[in-house]
Amino acid sequence: MKIGVIGSGSFATAIVKMLVENVEKVYWCVRNEYVKGAIEKRGHNPNYLTSVFFDVAHLELTTEVNELVEACDYIVLATPSIYLSDALEQMTVNCSGKIFISAIKGIVPVANDIVAHYLRERFDIGFRNQAVIAGPCHAEEVAMERLSYLTIATAEVSVAEELKKAFSSSFIKVNCSADILGNEYSAILKNIYAIGAGIASGLGYGDNFTAVFVSNAIREMERFLGAVYEIPRDVNESAYLGDLLVTAYSLFSRNRSLGNLIGKGYTVKSAIQSMNMVAEGYYAAKSIYETAQKHAIETPIINAVYRILYEDKNAEKEFENLTQVLN
Amino acid sequence: MKIGVIGSGSFATAIVKMLVENVEKVYWCVRNEYVKGAIEKRGHNPNYLTSVFFDVAHLELTTEVNELVEACDYIVLATPSIYLSDALEQMTVNCSGKIFISAIKGIVPVANDIVAHYLRERFDIGFRNQAVIAGPCHAEEVAMERLSYLTIATAEVSVAEELKKAFSSSFIKVNCSADILGNEYSAILKNIYAIGAGIASGLGYGDNFTAVFVSNAIREMERFLGAVYEIPRDVNESAYLGDLLVTAYSLFSRNRSLGNLIGKGYTVKSAIQSMNMVAEGYYAAKSIYETAQKHAIETPIINAVYRILYEDKNAEKEFENLTQVLN
Repeated sequence: MKIGVIGSGSFATAIVKMLVENVEKVYWCVRNEYVKGAIEKRGHNPNYLTSVFFDVAHLELTTEVNELVEACDYIVLATPSIYLSDALEQMTVNCSGKIFISAIKGIVPVANDIVAHYLRERFDIGFRNQAVIAGPCHAEEVAMERLSYLTIATAEVSVAEELKKAFSSSFIKVNCSADILGNEYSAILKNIYAIGAGIASGLGYGDNFTAVFVSNAIREMERFLGAVYEIPRDVNESAYLGDLLVTAYSLFSRNRSLGNLIGKGYTVKSAIQSMNMVAEGYYAAKSIYETAQKHAIETPIINAVYRILYEDKNAEKEFENLTQVLN
Repeated sequence: MKIGVIGSGSFATAIVKMLVENVEKVYWCVRNEYVKGAIEKRGHNPNYLTSVFFDVAHLELTTEVNELVEACDYIVLATPSIYLSDALEQMTVNCSGKIFISAIKGIVPVANDIVAHYLRERFDIGFRNQAVIAGPCHAEEVAMERLSYLTIATAEVSVAEELKKAFSSSFIKVNCSADILGNEYSAILKNIYAIGAGIASGLGYGDNFTAVFVSNAIREMERFLGAVYEIPRDVNESAYLGDLLVTAYSLFSRNRSLGNLIGKGYTVKSAIQSMNMVAEGYYAAKSIYETAQKHAIETPIINAVYRILYEDKNAEKEFENLTQVLN
């Protein structure tokens, strides 16, 4: 199996760690020569999950996307969503027949759309040649080899079986799903809900309210997914509810932290500036809000987060209104 | 409205605090003369939620159950489940026509059954004269007047409306439900799942696994409720999922703490002895396990917790097996 990973952040690094358990040689396209050199020389990513050591004999590092795509049949996309187009727009080699697996949980800005649509429309990569990897999966826990469950969504069962073999190990269990779009949307929505949970916490709401908030969020997610892609699904499966929980309840989630600062009274701009990296949910909120409006979906939580982030609405007042419609 | 509360623990105290917001005089039956005297003299419960002060002019304290039942039309039961029969078996006054509202989340040992069944079978109190109060609702947050949502389940809409008026305030919002048995069972089940979440944490499983565990728990709860009392319900409503979340994710939950000690290697006996108060989920696990067996419900989590608590099975091994069936 020729498989490669594009990206050099914490989740990309975690995925390479999962794959080297099973695959003789993992191709890995990183951002620049410094990162490539550091990994080759010292066996670990200098910036993320630095405790994870690799036997470099099992890695094939490059900084050229074309090199990786040419060499691989399966390509895992694991950049932050805002950098995906920078990487893929360089792609000139023929990618037909290859499988692109998105581990990205955000909106592609140039397309103002999800990765699955961007791949199909910009590169003519159909859903049969796509897969989505969903959590719940903090990269930090993968680094520690703490048991985690992934869900891999594909249109083709044979693809799912191949990927399941590549990812399964003593610390990774893999569920398979046919719900590519639902898994991608839910991974994006959960970041917006995590911003909301953070805002609530920053405003001083407690655990009782957070529980009500999350229970409303999963029902809102169910309505959203049902409207944009109606197939039978149980949103209480790990890829949907589990991923929402690990993000909304994690104090380490960037999305939750962003919300928390806003709830505490920072302006959106200063909250974003004070963080090292932009929270995926910030960009997602705008695009997802527009999608919800287009489909006339009842999404009071997304609407409130959107108005706070993009319409300069007062967080305290928005949440006061939200408490009237949650139940 | 003549309403009274039986019990002097933290949740009973929180309920009295909710009621004095709306009711001129709240009847309150406490355990002994010392507690009664302390509240009358100093305006607060000497043992629980000591920061909550009452205007004693609005309280009618007693230590006699009969006095309270005689005086009230609505009687809130808020003792630990193991003490409920001690209180009610003293009842000699006529209780027909009165409404009994259970805020108890556990099994009545003398009946080896839930409160709703115990009230009906031992005292001939039918479901039309019963109600159930469900969370998510940590008493400590009620003490701080942090916004919390209650669900009140009744067979009669008129009873729900009366109770909603009595409980609603600036910090309490009330949902109504017709699912008396489902709300009671779910409040009991969540304590067992919180023990399980604690065991997992004590064994060293991380946040990724906890999210998977909880997402499996809510699906198991849905199967259980559907088998014991089949009506249309959405287990993602606050009373079911919300209550599970606030308990399974709370580091202050007694049930989670009990599990955590067991996961860390304490024997069940020593874990129980090291705690001031027995966790409701411990007693519940046995009765609920038997109910699940009787109805042939697929409940791998309840079964694992039961075997660890009552069959001296090794927690590490049981959870290793459990990870194979969760998804």
